[in-house]
Amino acid sequence: MRHTPDPPMLTKTPAQSLSEQLADRLAHRIRDRLLAPGARLPSVRECARLQGVSPSTVVSAYDKLLAQGLIDARKNRGFFVREPRAARAEPPAAARREQPVQIDATALMRGMFHRVSDKPQPGMGVFPADWLETTFMPSAVRKLTSAKAINEVSLHYGEPAGDAGLRQALARKLGDMGLPLDAGQIVTSVGATHALDIISRTLLRPGDPVMVEEPGWAVEFARLAALGARVLPVPRGPDGPDLAVMARYCEAHRPKLYVSVSVLHNPTGHCLSPASAHRLLQLAAHHDFHVVEDDTYSHLAPPHATRLCVLDGLQRTLYVGGFAKVLAPNWRVGFLAAPAALVEPLIHTKMLSTLTTPALLEKALALCIEQGQLRRHAERLRARLDVARARSVQLARAAGCRFVAEPAGLFGWVDTGVDTDVLAQRLLDDGYMIAPGALFHAGRQPSTLMRINFATTQDAAFWRVYSRRVAEF
Amino acid sequence: MRHTPDPPMLTKTPAQSLSEQLADRLAHRIRDRLLAPGARLPSVRECARLQGVSPSTVVSAYDKLLAQGLIDARKNRGFFVREPRAARAEPPAAARREQPVQIDATALMRGMFHRVSDKPQPGMGVFPADWLETTFMPSAVRKLTSAKAINEVSLHYGEPAGDAGLRQALARKLGDMGLPLDAGQIVTSVGATHALDIISRTLLRPGDPVMVEEPGWAVEFARLAALGARVLPVPRGPDGPDLAVMARYCEAHRPKLYVSVSVLHNPTGHCLSPASAHRLLQLAAHHDFHVVEDDTYSHLAPPHATRLCVLDGLQRTLYVGGFAKVLAPNWRVGFLAAPAALVEPLIHTKMLSTLTTPALLEKALALCIEQGQLRRHAERLRARLDVARARSVQLARAAGCRFVAEPAGLFGWVDTGVDTDVLAQRLLDDGYMIAPGALFHAGRQPSTLMRINFATTQDAAFWRVYSRRVAEF
Repeated sequence: MRHTPDPPMLTKTPAQSLSEQLADRLAHRIRDRLLAPGARLPSVRECARLQGVSPSTVVSAYDKLLAQGLIDARKNRGFFVREPRAARAEPPAAARREQPVQIDATALMRGMFHRVSDKPQPGMGVFPADWLETTFMPSAVRKLTSAKAINEVSLHYGEPAGDAGLRQALARKLGDMGLPLDAGQIVTSVGATHALDIISRTLLRPGDPVMVEEPGWAVEFARLAALGARVLPVPRGPDGPDLAVMARYCEAHRPKLYVSVSVLHNPTGHCLSPASAHRLLQLAAHHDFHVVEDDTYSHLAPPHATRLCVLDGLQRTLYVGGFAKVLAPNWRVGFLAAPAALVEPLIHTKMLSTLTTPALLEKALALCIEQGQLRRHAERLRARLDVARARSVQLARAAGCRFVAEPAGLFGWVDTGVDTDVLAQRLLDDGYMIAPGALFHAGRQPSTLMRINFATTQDAAFWRVYSRRVAEF
Repeated sequence: MRHTPDPPMLTKTPAQSLSEQLADRLAHRIRDRLLAPGARLPSVRECARLQGVSPSTVVSAYDKLLAQGLIDARKNRGFFVREPRAARAEPPAAARREQPVQIDATALMRGMFHRVSDKPQPGMGVFPADWLETTFMPSAVRKLTSAKAINEVSLHYGEPAGDAGLRQALARKLGDMGLPLDAGQIVTSVGATHALDIISRTLLRPGDPVMVEEPGWAVEFARLAALGARVLPVPRGPDGPDLAVMARYCEAHRPKLYVSVSVLHNPTGHCLSPASAHRLLQLAAHHDFHVVEDDTYSHLAPPHATRLCVLDGLQRTLYVGGFAKVLAPNWRVGFLAAPAALVEPLIHTKMLSTLTTPALLEKALALCIEQGQLRRHAERLRARLDVARARSVQLARAAGCRFVAEPAGLFGWVDTGVDTDVLAQRLLDDGYMIAPGALFHAGRQPSTLMRINFATTQDAAFWRVYSRRVAEF
């Protein structure tokens, strides 16, 4: 991961004028996708104030960016990061018609994969690396590194469905959770993202209507849009989706699928209530749609959380899990569990996308699960997160944030009272990357909300800077 | 990988009748996809002769399979493996209209991932595992297994474009091949398959016409069909594609893309001539389509082989490479190199499909490349393959095979004179899996051709069985 130090104050040097320095700084942010295509730059006056330079310096810097083709000037509207114009690299026409701006979501997401400074990042989607350090994980990898073991997992294609040992371990794990199933119903994937992708590609055709949660996860919206699906956002409340809205969609559009993070929903942290789950499954049966349950935050969940797949017994539900949140974000090992009749078509799609998945990391993960170490590690993480959450909530409230959802799990969903797209751009100057609310809306509409990571917002330093920036509005 | 021992002769036991044993054997093959959905079973009379049982035993066995829903009887046509009928798991309607049978290709492919016996498999797409054993590959993995190194590659998401070190190493490698480019033009993937998938999803919309090579690679046909593309097969000759056919397609359909294995084409082994390459690129410029050059067999290629990307300088070409053939089939590390303007949209698609790719194997691969070990290993492999190829060609010719293409690289493309779909089913009884010609045609039409792997057909044992089976026709 590249690492950009905090931006210093601009100071004129013999080598570079102030406007050149400012243009360079903004150009880097545009190239690194910290400023997404289509994002509006601050007005000349505002930028001058923020950077402590004269308006004419900003005008000159914006002129340089215009000349480099990095930004566009729109009459009476201001300056915008230019949209890429690769001739045929646009999303399918159907998707563009339906969600005109949504496709920028991964562009904005790229910022989240770019370390903007060494500070703890409030917008992160995972735990800081030091929270995930264990002795058992490296030890599991090392158990597979005799020449013989490495050759066995490397030198011939693995099973298309995934490593048999991992699938057995996962089947036992799901059985313990109350979802008895055959290991043959499990297909491994390159992280939960890939499992969701395999499912969407198998079950959907261009133009198919799909219900998603709003607020929800931008990558999910963007993927469905890129597949040409018609995205129908269902408001997500404390107990679950708004079933009245869902019923209306069912009557009007006959959706094929509902995709849901039922437990510790991202970004609100809400868990589905048993009654909501029951009624949702009744609706699914009545209107004949499939339900995808993305249980990414499973390991951080309270005991006895309600899962749709458990109630339904994998009849019309598909379950997706991963280990990015609790073990190793970059192993990219995830899986899906599906009704038996869907397994072959799902494996077919997996083979078209990646042929097989690397067995080395799958076998290492199986070791971590089977020896109970992962479960115990998750318990410790939850306890540490509880402490961090209590601190973060206190600091956030003191800084004037209002919690829109009861704090739970890894993320807080807070109202800042100011436009968080603008706030995000300002906080970059301080070396902080936040996750603005617009990222979690299918339509990317401006929002005063933001998602905070409780593990990275328990220090007062961030909140002091935050309060200063909010006061500038 | 599961391992099924060679099937013994059927012998009546107190526990199981002959017809039960036969039904079981066939049921296993259907479930393991060694018999693909839609495949015709031998006639009752033929099956009786092959298995050394009475016709009434076969009738009884087929009845059992009918009752289990594994096969269908079609009036006056015989018995067929049942097509799966998962309600919504079909490919997009557009794809079904264009290529009615092609979608079975990965079902048939699954057989190729299933070890049918311990014998060397003539239908394999990669080298046998023992050919790929090296000391440097396990040693490269072990260099990354200090706890510190494992944590670094595991505990935070990697760059969406892929490990920076690997992309640098690949850029240098491509530079040496005559393709100077910036590491920023390279995006890593989960094997070459994933790179081809990312490109297709980025550049194509449902209904777009795409030119492919015929014969060609079944997974490519199936992927394009599943994306709803209109697949236009261009005959591939010894010097390259049939440019007259291509020109007619361009006039009639305005294709968006041409996908080609230019060097050591699968299954023929042909290499593109410089003149063909030049004229093909002229056609691409004139009719404004992109060219995807799949260089999967790069490491086995003769020196100075002509590459489209080198001639074109990655203007309208995209290059795809992988390491499954020469280093480790199941690491699933591949990459693409693309024109600068396409890189961001391609990374966008990669993120929607897998978010990032595992850095551990990418870093290990970078070590293997940088120390020159991979290059020297490939040289040794080529020398060993030359010897195997000479032996295999001699044995194949002695068994009555005619080489349709001049033997080169890993694969031979031979005419057996008999229907290779039927031959494939018979040879399974002997523990051999072959790659029938139909697998390499977009329309899956019956064929007397088969692809052989020179590394696995240099022993007389297979050819004796082969000759006996061919004589039965």
